[in-house]
Amino acid sequence: MAMRLPRGFRAGATRAGIKPSGKPDLALLVSGLPASWAYVATQNRAAAPSIHRGRALYVQGGALRAVVVNAGNANCATGERGFLDDRRMAEAAALRLGVPVEEVLTASTGVIGVPLPVEKVEAGLPQIELTPYADAFAEAILTTDLVPKVAEAEVGGARIVGIAKGSGMIHPNMATMLAFVVTDALVSQEALREIWRGIVDRTFNQVTVDGDTSTNDLALLMANGAHGEVPLEPFVEAVEGVARELARRIARDGEGATKLMTVRVVGAATEEEARRAARTIAGSALWKSALYGNDPNWGRILAALGNSGVRFDPLRVRIQVQGIPLYAGGALPFDREAASQAMRREEVEVLVDLGEGQAEGVAWGCDLTEGYVRINALYTT
Amino acid sequence: MAMRLPRGFRAGATRAGIKPSGKPDLALLVSGLPASWAYVATQNRAAAPSIHRGRALYVQGGALRAVVVNAGNANCATGERGFLDDRRMAEAAALRLGVPVEEVLTASTGVIGVPLPVEKVEAGLPQIELTPYADAFAEAILTTDLVPKVAEAEVGGARIVGIAKGSGMIHPNMATMLAFVVTDALVSQEALREIWRGIVDRTFNQVTVDGDTSTNDLALLMANGAHGEVPLEPFVEAVEGVARELARRIARDGEGATKLMTVRVVGAATEEEARRAARTIAGSALWKSALYGNDPNWGRILAALGNSGVRFDPLRVRIQVQGIPLYAGGALPFDREAASQAMRREEVEVLVDLGEGQAEGVAWGCDLTEGYVRINALYTT
Repeated sequence: MAMRLPRGFRAGATRAGIKPSGKPDLALLVSGLPASWAYVATQNRAAAPSIHRGRALYVQGGALRAVVVNAGNANCATGERGFLDDRRMAEAAALRLGVPVEEVLTASTGVIGVPLPVEKVEAGLPQIELTPYADAFAEAILTTDLVPKVAEAEVGGARIVGIAKGSGMIHPNMATMLAFVVTDALVSQEALREIWRGIVDRTFNQVTVDGDTSTNDLALLMANGAHGEVPLEPFVEAVEGVARELARRIARDGEGATKLMTVRVVGAATEEEARRAARTIAGSALWKSALYGNDPNWGRILAALGNSGVRFDPLRVRIQVQGIPLYAGGALPFDREAASQAMRREEVEVLVDLGEGQAEGVAWGCDLTEGYVRINALYTT
Repeated sequence: MAMRLPRGFRAGATRAGIKPSGKPDLALLVSGLPASWAYVATQNRAAAPSIHRGRALYVQGGALRAVVVNAGNANCATGERGFLDDRRMAEAAALRLGVPVEEVLTASTGVIGVPLPVEKVEAGLPQIELTPYADAFAEAILTTDLVPKVAEAEVGGARIVGIAKGSGMIHPNMATMLAFVVTDALVSQEALREIWRGIVDRTFNQVTVDGDTSTNDLALLMANGAHGEVPLEPFVEAVEGVARELARRIARDGEGATKLMTVRVVGAATEEEARRAARTIAGSALWKSALYGNDPNWGRILAALGNSGVRFDPLRVRIQVQGIPLYAGGALPFDREAASQAMRREEVEVLVDLGEGQAEGVAWGCDLTEGYVRINALYTT
């Protein structure tokens, strides 16, 4: 599945020896032209040096030329040294590419608290072969993910390609994962930054795997203009489509997950409430466990809804799972065996009508499985 | 382990046939004298009829004589009928005891969305034998709990006895579980209500099992004055001690738990922040999984801390697990095997110093295990 990047972008990866598995773990994504960019980063207060540096570059407001990513080591909680190592990683990438260091963004993902072997990064960067394809990059940025995640769209002849990693520590409040969306459309930095926050709120921030928000995550949108201008509205829709597809893939590939859950909340008073309600349901450990067991236990959906803090009257709420009405102001009679059977799919859809207003929201999650516990009980030792 | 109730209290239980297992499932707790009372109930917006009724009685401000509890059916999300059934349960208890219905509190716990077989409650109540002991009551209110939870204290000759159930859906924001604390001390309703909220915030609301807040939970404090007055300050301490002990037992008996985790946060700017930080760490699915695997993965503690939203500088934070320093502004060298060995206990203590101020807070939780997933994947079907 070769995924061609938009015009003017190249990418590549190498095995720098950071992952104990010896798999590719150092990746570059480069634009031949200085690109405008927008960026949303983790809210976690223990954010990694790469996040601090990214925020500073964002505020400076210059163009972006490249992103250098390492997987296997988050370079987080590594003390003062972590900031120097992050800087060295940016400098090595700038040297490799012949671009100003202020135009290179860094990203790290992996274990927390272990010093980054930055000399491996420095030794690995010159070995990266850059190609017009996203695939090597998409593979190298993975950690416990099972599959690479890419998505694409076209708008007015311009192309949009998204690449993401996810897996554990996936939860709203940004800090979802690493996501890089690049396009050859010509869009001003101002316009990009205006649209990206909203798109991230409706897509990546609506994904929840386990309620933990990582220290290192970011979502980047980069436009190098190689194709030229495109109409803004369809562009926003196309970028959101790519982000949504990546969000779904991240949820589906949650640690230990056996299925993707889509929660759609309609009839909310506000969009914010609809999104929050959907997120709370998608994040409920009790409902996620029931989902794993193919148990149409709608009481847990209602209880999660009650925890979300959004306005509703339980006597007006309606709940469907896989299109089967289970609750409408009270329990509905339904064939429990058939409902359970309908849940034995790789994708399960929950629909909740709050009966309060017109606003809608969607969230994505996965089931909570014995596999999740096993993966996370034994990650570092 | 016979636990004698304070003077003037009696309790008992019977098998009403609500639990499919046929175990005792209907319980009464009665004061011979009208008692002053304080009450904190779930914040869940889909709260059960028993909670709505309890809040109304609370606002009316009258005395309390009895609590009737059924286990096996939450009588929640059962439509208009649920409110009538809850009222019938209170009336049947009032009739059985010869007290005004406004002096009877109801509590229900169990499956959501299934109509309460209220005729079984009505048939069962006359069969309950009341004794001066808490044990039959403590056993009948359990659902997926493995052990009954009682605790006691004495202050100035007055006694305090607490009885609780917990297990799943245990999370702050009240809505923790059912907890009944009764005393023969003479304390005005006003004073009781003033102290109870704070005690609940420092104890039951600091317990987290899975982040889900139930629709039915409540914490009741009842004082019938049979012993007479006691000094208020030691009384508050004694009640808090009982509540804290119940909180610990609830956490230890969380669904599927193999160990109790105590998280103590010191050096916070405010008590609220200390408690919130402790709760967020105790609730992190990633750290709970590491705890299960005896993995001293302090990076997850730091990441959870970062999610709590409290103020801190990662370079000033210190983290210990089982008294072993793991992090102090950066990774500390430690013997991973020895630290893992130290975590192989039924109780694990996490100590975090934020280095910001003088405030402290404690939270209790448990590990996340394959057993939790199994229990909750197959609860109703």
